[in-house]
Amino acid sequence: MAKKIQPRRQRKGEDKTVHVGLTQFAAVPEARVNRNRQMKMIELAAKQGAQVICTQEMCTSQYFCQAEDHRFFSLAESIPGPTTDAACKLARKHKVVIIASLFERRASGLYHNTAAVIDADGSLLGTYRKMHIPDDPLFYEKFYFTPGDAGEAGSGGFRAWKTRHATIGVLICWDQWFPEAARLTAMQGAEILFYPTAIGWHPSEKAQYGKAQHESWEVAMRAHAIANGCYVCAANRVGHEHIAGPDGKPVSKDGLEFWGQSFVAGPDGVVLHRAGASEGGVSIVPCDLDRVEFSRTHWPFLRDRRVDAYGGLVRRFGV
Amino acid sequence: MAKKIQPRRQRKGEDKTVHVGLTQFAAVPEARVNRNRQMKMIELAAKQGAQVICTQEMCTSQYFCQAEDHRFFSLAESIPGPTTDAACKLARKHKVVIIASLFERRASGLYHNTAAVIDADGSLLGTYRKMHIPDDPLFYEKFYFTPGDAGEAGSGGFRAWKTRHATIGVLICWDQWFPEAARLTAMQGAEILFYPTAIGWHPSEKAQYGKAQHESWEVAMRAHAIANGCYVCAANRVGHEHIAGPDGKPVSKDGLEFWGQSFVAGPDGVVLHRAGASEGGVSIVPCDLDRVEFSRTHWPFLRDRRVDAYGGLVRRFGV
Repeated sequence: MAKKIQPRRQRKGEDKTVHVGLTQFAAVPEARVNRNRQMKMIELAAKQGAQVICTQEMCTSQYFCQAEDHRFFSLAESIPGPTTDAACKLARKHKVVIIASLFERRASGLYHNTAAVIDADGSLLGTYRKMHIPDDPLFYEKFYFTPGDAGEAGSGGFRAWKTRHATIGVLICWDQWFPEAARLTAMQGAEILFYPTAIGWHPSEKAQYGKAQHESWEVAMRAHAIANGCYVCAANRVGHEHIAGPDGKPVSKDGLEFWGQSFVAGPDGVVLHRAGASEGGVSIVPCDLDRVEFSRTHWPFLRDRRVDAYGGLVRRFGV
Repeated sequence: MAKKIQPRRQRKGEDKTVHVGLTQFAAVPEARVNRNRQMKMIELAAKQGAQVICTQEMCTSQYFCQAEDHRFFSLAESIPGPTTDAACKLARKHKVVIIASLFERRASGLYHNTAAVIDADGSLLGTYRKMHIPDDPLFYEKFYFTPGDAGEAGSGGFRAWKTRHATIGVLICWDQWFPEAARLTAMQGAEILFYPTAIGWHPSEKAQYGKAQHESWEVAMRAHAIANGCYVCAANRVGHEHIAGPDGKPVSKDGLEFWGQSFVAGPDGVVLHRAGASEGGVSIVPCDLDRVEFSRTHWPFLRDRRVDAYGGLVRRFGV
């Protein structure tokens, strides 16, 4: 595979590097505390040079989906709302793009797992509502979240935004496992895919399955980067969360241990940065957008897609 | 992610393990010599317990696509033809399934890069004709191969076969980079995806890019295993091939160094076996098909595909 010629646009004075900022932290039960912490981390990332900053999934709350509990609907907020208001202010102040993931109340009885995309002038560009909703032991998301609308034919609910610093796409956590989602988002023009995430181990299984589970997660997203010739960034939460039920007692025996390790993969799938597994923090990672052009011409997968043969992908199964 | 319960069908006396055999070797210019060597390796694999055996891509020839040279069309053969005749005989004799990759002459002026699928009774079940055709420096495949037909709506030219030992799908080399191909083949019911392959390094680039290229290749296919909850097997050629032109001189400065490393990945994407990078050989790898059931219920990605939102995948690009 030929790789020698330097990217076309990489000439003196034309640096296309954008600095991505990923934040991860251990959430507490109080939304206000989490929101303040999140905003401080965004500010810290901006001061360290980040231009596009992504939060972990539902950054203002703990991962309440460990239980099916109607009380937790009160954690949802509207868009615009307190979190986007605070983030828009910071975006404008620091001239940074922000992807803020939160629990959205769209209407009475209609809730989404949503990411708001805010441009560097503080304007709210739009939202992405999680399209693929999991439902697994302690990940009871189907109880809370209506999946995002497929919308008009073509984009299928998957979106990209031309922000001041890069054209970006956003997907959320469980979407990570679906190559269709990454492809459709890249096809909207995204040069970087962001995945706000809340994934972790069942502590009792960690010894046996933990390593393979984490590696599967990373491999699945690195493959999205490779297949689409773009950057992929995941911002994941950390910490051991043990949600309490109405009686104050934990709803599960051992809760969830979120595995952190927010990362950035380049268009060749190589992991450029991986945060720690147990501590919160801000990651600042330079991404040279000329590498998207380079990858897509040197590994020209987009050239060769068999669009005449992919019609069956809208079926549930083929047999 | 919950992983503790043992697979449903894994009970005493119900072992669903199938032994896969992958062969890799360094080809020489003479087709007859390669064919004999390939058949001996199949026989060896069968004797070592392999039940489903896959060859490298175009097992009877060197990788002639290093040049656009009309002489090489004479290497093509019909199906049935000498290679499938020999393979069918071995399949019947040893009761093994064989995936035999070869250069197919379908008609005058119409050639394909094809894999024949032969059942354990020696019958030719069908063929898969490579759907995605590369064209890269020294990989001039578009000159030789017409892409496989998309065929009827639904399968789109991607197929699976219920063989005596497993339900298998076959894709070929460049198809590796397209998650759509893996998905559509898995959707036909395949529990194992086989990729006969001929991929290697440009020797002059190996030091700088070799490691990342090889890893991208493996990651892309491991992700197919994860996304589809199935086994993925790649059989790749080895050796340094330096194709000669009509004047007897090499057509390129340094040829291609095929990287071998045929491998099997389990449904969680973990590499279960990886062959050497420089020597030929036979790999025998047990694959427990109950793990397909297990993966697909514990990581239920097929449950959550947004088939209402994937229509845009038949577009070339979204913007």
